Amino acid sequence: MLEKELLEVVASIRPADAAVAAQARERLDNLTKPPGSLGKLEELAWRLASMQGRVKPTIGKKRVYTLAGDHGVTAEGVSPYPKEVTPQMVLNFLNGGAAISVLTRHAGAEIRVVDIGVDFDFGAAPGLVQKKVKRGTDNFAVGPAMTREEAVRAIGVGVALAEEAAQDGVTLLGVGEMGIGNTTPSAALLSVFTGLPPSEAVGRGTGIDDQGLKRKATVVAKGIEVNRPDPADPIGVLSKVGGLELAGMAGLYLGAAAKRIPVLADGFISCAAALAAVKMNPTVGDYLILSHLSEEHGHRKLVEALGQKPIMDLTMRLGEGSGAALAMFLVEAASKIISEMATFEEAGVSNKE
Amino acid sequence: MLEKELLEVVASIRPADAAVAAQARERLDNLTKPPGSLGKLEELAWRLASMQGRVKPTIGKKRVYTLAGDHGVTAEGVSPYPKEVTPQMVLNFLNGGAAISVLTRHAGAEIRVVDIGVDFDFGAAPGLVQKKVKRGTDNFAVGPAMTREEAVRAIGVGVALAEEAAQDGVTLLGVGEMGIGNTTPSAALLSVFTGLPPSEAVGRGTGIDDQGLKRKATVVAKGIEVNRPDPADPIGVLSKVGGLELAGMAGLYLGAAAKRIPVLADGFISCAAALAAVKMNPTVGDYLILSHLSEEHGHRKLVEALGQKPIMDLTMRLGEGSGAALAMFLVEAASKIISEMATFEEAGVSNKE
Repeated sequence: MLEKELLEVVASIRPADAAVAAQARERLDNLTKPPGSLGKLEELAWRLASMQGRVKPTIGKKRVYTLAGDHGVTAEGVSPYPKEVTPQMVLNFLNGGAAISVLTRHAGAEIRVVDIGVDFDFGAAPGLVQKKVKRGTDNFAVGPAMTREEAVRAIGVGVALAEEAAQDGVTLLGVGEMGIGNTTPSAALLSVFTGLPPSEAVGRGTGIDDQGLKRKATVVAKGIEVNRPDPADPIGVLSKVGGLELAGMAGLYLGAAAKRIPVLADGFISCAAALAAVKMNPTVGDYLILSHLSEEHGHRKLVEALGQKPIMDLTMRLGEGSGAALAMFLVEAASKIISEMATFEEAGVSNKE
Repeated sequence: MLEKELLEVVASIRPADAAVAAQARERLDNLTKPPGSLGKLEELAWRLASMQGRVKPTIGKKRVYTLAGDHGVTAEGVSPYPKEVTPQMVLNFLNGGAAISVLTRHAGAEIRVVDIGVDFDFGAAPGLVQKKVKRGTDNFAVGPAMTREEAVRAIGVGVALAEEAAQDGVTLLGVGEMGIGNTTPSAALLSVFTGLPPSEAVGRGTGIDDQGLKRKATVVAKGIEVNRPDPADPIGVLSKVGGLELAGMAGLYLGAAAKRIPVLADGFISCAAALAAVKMNPTVGDYLILSHLSEEHGHRKLVEALGQKPIMDLTMRLGEGSGAALAMFLVEAASKIISEMATFEEAGVSNKE
């Protein structure tokens, strides 16, 4: 995908239907329950209605895309796990033994594991979606993570995956990732887009110690200093201090919004990518649902920047799409509440005196 | 059921298995994820293991009991809905149009609607479990809600339902209710068991206005003054200022704990009943799971008194068992995480450096 084509997709995104949202809220108030008593489910219900453009939305096929990529910045010692864990976990996903494997099975959702930038040759790996743009990013502490053209290609991979999902009749998307070191570029995106100092944007990721956490903040600060990303140019930010899976996820949100498919973000990394997408076109937010509040330090700030409340707080910090997979059940519950519940009139129930 | 028989059930409750809990925590730390990164799901996983007495717990058949009862105290004007709504909603449950009908279907759980004290003659109502102890409680603002013998019978109904569930192979129970006016006796239970002043224990229920809220606090205070319930005698408290469905729910928790079945409380009313059960035997808490934090004012205090954190906060305040039905998906997810995920060794994934 060329940047020109990408910008056409970005410009094609239309807002969710406000008139349908109003009709849906009216219907919710007539269902046999005190008005508003289903809380967040009611908000999800009218939002789904406005995304699908009908008062009784339905959720059918569900799919999680888990995008994997490696990070040159791991050379700086920002993760307690070795980078070999990225391809090892990809194989674990394909073999069904990882958390996201278990949770997508449980959620009745498909899982698509995508190599968008792992520093490993998988050969013929059954089930793996091979979309490698580059064998891992370069170390952004010393130069750009990737070229602008590579960033556009990675975003384009995500857009194409969302288009494929639309063609396959997917009605609810989840976005997850795997990439040792990827909370570091995510913290960089948070810092660049919101102005939060790197020391407040970084967190412990998979469990780095106090010294490592300080190093991580220094690395993010150095990366921003060296690369001077312009917050008004999200593609530039993704290429300079981002990651291949982060760019791909940004593309997934853009593509989902263009196809009017509700899309669930996961935690810190997935929301950092969502923020990049929203910076490209704020209307992406109409189709975005935040699944859970992550324990990762900067996630609250990301959530604030995205202007939404997550559905759950399960004190999780795993990634992979695990929170998105779990939230699918609640999103579908919301669609059924508005579509299947009886009104006071239908059920012959007396309303408030 | 006689009080003597009930006390035998209460005394028969055995703690969850601490040794299995320790083994389960060790297994969780060896699964292919950073230790603790699945947060509340990990806590649920080892708790389920300790309840079932095996490191790999499984959830099979799931069932929600929704107990319905009426309240003489509605004569004091404590609810914005007329009391006819109790039987009307029971019929709505049976016809599949209520929130709990939709949510139990979605959760793959059975629903059992139980008339334990509705002031209405249902005749032959297909699907209704008829266990009426009394046609609604008496107005506790002027005298006891019911006799001690009636309270024991209502608790016994709940115990028997849990025993029936165990015989049917149910592995996860949810507890819900319907009863116009029932946040008022629930606030009374909260006030009596914790010493919280009635004005802080009451909330808006289905949506009472400011004046009604003051009246509700006065009614609870009057009920406590008139009946002088002894917090050390939970059966006495339930009979004096409780409700038939509250007593039945307390019995469900006791029966579930006696049969070592994990049992999900719902919101304010369901947790008030859980507190009564825990006061009868604190070991009930080993089998109790709090599904969600309700918006009803006193729920935070109830949750504190129960000493647990709810799984979700969906800003809901409906009752019926709606939160319990939704949480079943997450509880089952936890059981699958510990039972189905691969260990680092099994998956050939490198652990922390």
